[in-house]
Amino acid sequence: MKNVIGAKCTICGKMIEATPDITVCPSCGGIMDIEYDYEYIKSKLTPYGLMDREDRTMWRYMEFLPVEGRGKLPKLRVGMSPFYKADRLADTLGIKTLYIKDDGINPTASLKDRASAMAVVKAEEAGKNIIACSSTGNAASSLAGNAAAAGMKTYIFVPERAPKGKVAQLMMFGATVISVKGTYEDTFRLSAEAIDRWGWYNRNAAINPYLMEGKKTVALEIAEQLKFKMTDYVAISVGDGCTIAGLWKGFKDMYAAGFIDRLPRIISVQASGCCPINTAAAAGTEEWSPQPENTIADSIAVGVPRNPIKAIRAIRESNGVCVNVSDEEILAAMRLLGRTQGVFAEPAGATGTAGIKKAIELGLIEKDASVVSVVTGNGLKDVNNAIKAAGEPICIPPEMDLLLKELPELA
Amino acid sequence: MKNVIGAKCTICGKMIEATPDITVCPSCGGIMDIEYDYEYIKSKLTPYGLMDREDRTMWRYMEFLPVEGRGKLPKLRVGMSPFYKADRLADTLGIKTLYIKDDGINPTASLKDRASAMAVVKAEEAGKNIIACSSTGNAASSLAGNAAAAGMKTYIFVPERAPKGKVAQLMMFGATVISVKGTYEDTFRLSAEAIDRWGWYNRNAAINPYLMEGKKTVALEIAEQLKFKMTDYVAISVGDGCTIAGLWKGFKDMYAAGFIDRLPRIISVQASGCCPINTAAAAGTEEWSPQPENTIADSIAVGVPRNPIKAIRAIRESNGVCVNVSDEEILAAMRLLGRTQGVFAEPAGATGTAGIKKAIELGLIEKDASVVSVVTGNGLKDVNNAIKAAGEPICIPPEMDLLLKELPELA
Repeated sequence: MKNVIGAKCTICGKMIEATPDITVCPSCGGIMDIEYDYEYIKSKLTPYGLMDREDRTMWRYMEFLPVEGRGKLPKLRVGMSPFYKADRLADTLGIKTLYIKDDGINPTASLKDRASAMAVVKAEEAGKNIIACSSTGNAASSLAGNAAAAGMKTYIFVPERAPKGKVAQLMMFGATVISVKGTYEDTFRLSAEAIDRWGWYNRNAAINPYLMEGKKTVALEIAEQLKFKMTDYVAISVGDGCTIAGLWKGFKDMYAAGFIDRLPRIISVQASGCCPINTAAAAGTEEWSPQPENTIADSIAVGVPRNPIKAIRAIRESNGVCVNVSDEEILAAMRLLGRTQGVFAEPAGATGTAGIKKAIELGLIEKDASVVSVVTGNGLKDVNNAIKAAGEPICIPPEMDLLLKELPELA
Repeated sequence: MKNVIGAKCTICGKMIEATPDITVCPSCGGIMDIEYDYEYIKSKLTPYGLMDREDRTMWRYMEFLPVEGRGKLPKLRVGMSPFYKADRLADTLGIKTLYIKDDGINPTASLKDRASAMAVVKAEEAGKNIIACSSTGNAASSLAGNAAAAGMKTYIFVPERAPKGKVAQLMMFGATVISVKGTYEDTFRLSAEAIDRWGWYNRNAAINPYLMEGKKTVALEIAEQLKFKMTDYVAISVGDGCTIAGLWKGFKDMYAAGFIDRLPRIISVQASGCCPINTAAAAGTEEWSPQPENTIADSIAVGVPRNPIKAIRAIRESNGVCVNVSDEEILAAMRLLGRTQGVFAEPAGATGTAGIKKAIELGLIEKDASVVSVVTGNGLKDVNNAIKAAGEPICIPPEMDLLLKELPELA
């Protein structure tokens, strides 16, 4: 990897070689960050060269990615998700320019596919053909799907309470699913023991720095889809902190390589019922405290975030904006995205949009600003909350006079 | 539309002008078909010209489509869905060359987005800003989503028994949903009365010939994604007959314009519990009889198909193969697609693959053949059947010795 200098600890600054199976810092246990040689990247790729590429996946950004070559890339078409100018939603919210990056349109219907596709490549580079994780959410389903397409085996540990539908998706992708009679903590512990014992590749976004490098491709795409003219803000929902950190890393990489000439401010949106990262960032500290997980947005209900430092730094470095939104505001944003733009988001997927609405109302961002809202997951992932958000249909016997009464706007 | 000659009746052959709001033949009530000037198309577009296009949606095939221009195209990114060479599934099935066209990766997660995007354009050309249909399935959700993105209003009539999740999706996209206390027949009748009364645009794939023109883009893409070297067979699930008819029309168009030098044979796959079209086609007749709707594959559970003639002709003209598959075979195909290729299909979406498996087993197609399997809808649309197909996870307390017992392959 001529484009990669090494991996640097976010805490003690120690630099080590970027082997495929690095996890945390060998000196202090801090989370590592992949460092690039931007002069090398510049010498190999220009914005025009990029725009000419035929590859319509996240792998079109090869020079920005910590992988060896094109030989063994995963099979699923991850990335290059739709990017819409959302004029009707912008009008509704009262903001000048709004774009939607719909990452629910990915093979397993969430942004997590970017991280899992990267995990599959790095596992292969590490000579492993089994990958494991403990999760029931989008990370697990994306891992199971991307590994299946690559012919790799997965062991996925879920707590017994995991919803049947989510378990079914994992089973369908051929994962060996171990449902653990116990808490999430019990589940995690058994998975860690098993990973150690059998030497499986560990898909854990916080301790494996490569996964964030996969996630950052959403930012590389946003920059390219904006024709390298960055917006003032980019809004994203925040749970364990890896996604916002990846987003910010992507923009910083493009800036460092001269592809964009300014960086956006990141709008970090959490649920009011679970906002440890925003609470710390707003107080100007990296010291965060655990919180209860009181929100319908399950994908970001993370009371003990696993990557708080990178997330808090992303907010601080970007001169970012922190907004917390209620479940009602999230459900309202789901309706807004659907009704004005035809985009169906899961609750965490609509949380960024809810945050933009609130930031405008609170005067935290300017009405003549330009903003990108990242939709992180598809509404089909969580139909129960869609039912909550959607409201009830008109219900009548099959008679025209009754229809007329129910639809006075047509009378 | 310089590329369009007119609309021709499939029964009496009458030719009329292709105005945006045509439905059935004014003389005999037959279904119409859009006819093209292939010499004109050839003069405007070549395969190389096509491959250079930046547009990565179904509208890249503009010269093959019955629309005026590029001014008012829908906003959602419909089409150019993933096309995978499925080597691992091919090995499992014992066939030489297999591709998967994953049309579950579309804005509302089914192939129907292609028809609904076309309906939105033609409604606008017809000067209408309200579109209506009666359906609870993929046609309805795709119409609601595509219309929302274009700022158009939809009225969608559903029978009271419609699943809440599907109704929620429609409501989320801002459709006015009328839940009718009665049978599907009652629902359809009330919708027809309302469409007549208020002059709404009618999104009904059988009587509106333009919708099939939208659906045919899946074939145009398959041809292009194969670099214009057609496979021996293309397999697709069949319900009311509009999709297989659109698929065949797309290949015929590409052949007539010289983009491909041979036509594939179509493998028409229906559920054993509901196969009126295959029954007629296999008997060599256009006379079909209604059947009960006994299959889990709801999207193709159509006992009274609305477009049988075009479907039966597609099978006959292509020297096609008819295969019927049981629900168990459909569930098995869902598992196969997931486990070998990381593709998650709804039951009707996996039915084409189930048909290929059976056709190989029955010796209906050759083992050294090349086949494309079209996956028509995403598995997230029908999680209950995914649970049926997926099987049960391993369930244990959090103890390593118990894990060892459950995973003897690792001992």
